[in-house]
Amino acid sequence: MKTKVFYCCLVLFFLGFQGYVGARLLVESKPDRDDTAAYARWLVSQNSWGILTTLSIELEGSPFGNVVSFSDGVPGKGTGVPYFYLTTLDPTARNALKDHRSSLAISEYPLGTCSNADPESPVCAKITLTGRLVLLEANSKEAEFARTALFTKHPEMKGWPKGHDFQVFKLEIEDIFMINWFGGPKPLTVDQYLKYKM
Amino acid sequence: MKTKVFYCCLVLFFLGFQGYVGARLLVESKPDRDDTAAYARWLVSQNSWGILTTLSIELEGSPFGNVVSFSDGVPGKGTGVPYFYLTTLDPTARNALKDHRSSLAISEYPLGTCSNADPESPVCAKITLTGRLVLLEANSKEAEFARTALFTKHPEMKGWPKGHDFQVFKLEIEDIFMINWFGGPKPLTVDQYLKYKM
Repeated sequence: MKTKVFYCCLVLFFLGFQGYVGARLLVESKPDRDDTAAYARWLVSQNSWGILTTLSIELEGSPFGNVVSFSDGVPGKGTGVPYFYLTTLDPTARNALKDHRSSLAISEYPLGTCSNADPESPVCAKITLTGRLVLLEANSKEAEFARTALFTKHPEMKGWPKGHDFQVFKLEIEDIFMINWFGGPKPLTVDQYLKYKM
Repeated sequence: MKTKVFYCCLVLFFLGFQGYVGARLLVESKPDRDDTAAYARWLVSQNSWGILTTLSIELEGSPFGNVVSFSDGVPGKGTGVPYFYLTTLDPTARNALKDHRSSLAISEYPLGTCSNADPESPVCAKITLTGRLVLLEANSKEAEFARTALFTKHPEMKGWPKGHDFQVFKLEIEDIFMINWFGGPKPLTVDQYLKYKM
């Protein structure tokens, strides 16, 4: 009986504990912080959402940030290029079709790997990819690749209303701003970022 | 002995389980989704970080999103006005001093209250406050209030290097975009938002 009680409680403990570590187990371990390209690609591929910013048509050119989901590839095979599934019912897609200038900002904080650091601390990494937010031709191979990348990480998207005319967009990256430690933004070219092999 | 083992395991279970529910216990319960002002104020006061966007000087006017911490008041006494602790070593503060146009985007997702909804789903709320990002006079009463609001929610800030010249900024809100259910953005004026009593 004592053994039964013990094992029963052990199971209960693990059921509880798995909630705590569950999310962290899903995140691949961090690259070395001095391996700038690796760190940047890790941040982008491990995150599933961020803030996509465009220039607002309705608010006279103000920068307009919007919470979006994205994917740079199926898990473990990220390309570094963020793809989005957007509808022109939402201002972000409308803004981008008028002026492509855009940025995607991502934080390490929601990954749960910043220990006790504040979200604004340089010890908790952040990356901003700036460039052009462009609509992909729906029948192109790249759009097909992007849909697989998006629907794998965001299965709910497949069921989003057909009538809302969701389309695939990508951010053509022109500049990278990343801080992952003290000392200011790390130098990193788009070429170094894209050519890094995961 | 059996009783001892049982209680020991019960303690272990709660230690594990508290990790899972810990973050959620810190978040006050959601207002009714049709109480738009209450929901917006809840989203802003419960979150501690977001993406603050400005118009980039270095990147020829591109919208530049940056991960920042903020506070709208001490816990339980939010004002709805987001305050920030920024340094001009960072582009966001430099951009804002040249062109005040800015927005702060916040997601419900990191609060852990979206159940299984995707971060881009309208069921997982998001808010974008657009307006003017302005520097507060360091010796003003408002700056003193803001420092208390910031340092209470972000104790680490108090120790940030003096030489980095951190200063208090606030977002003067001019427009509110919030989605917290199906049916598009909810109508909400700045006046309704600010006058809501928590």
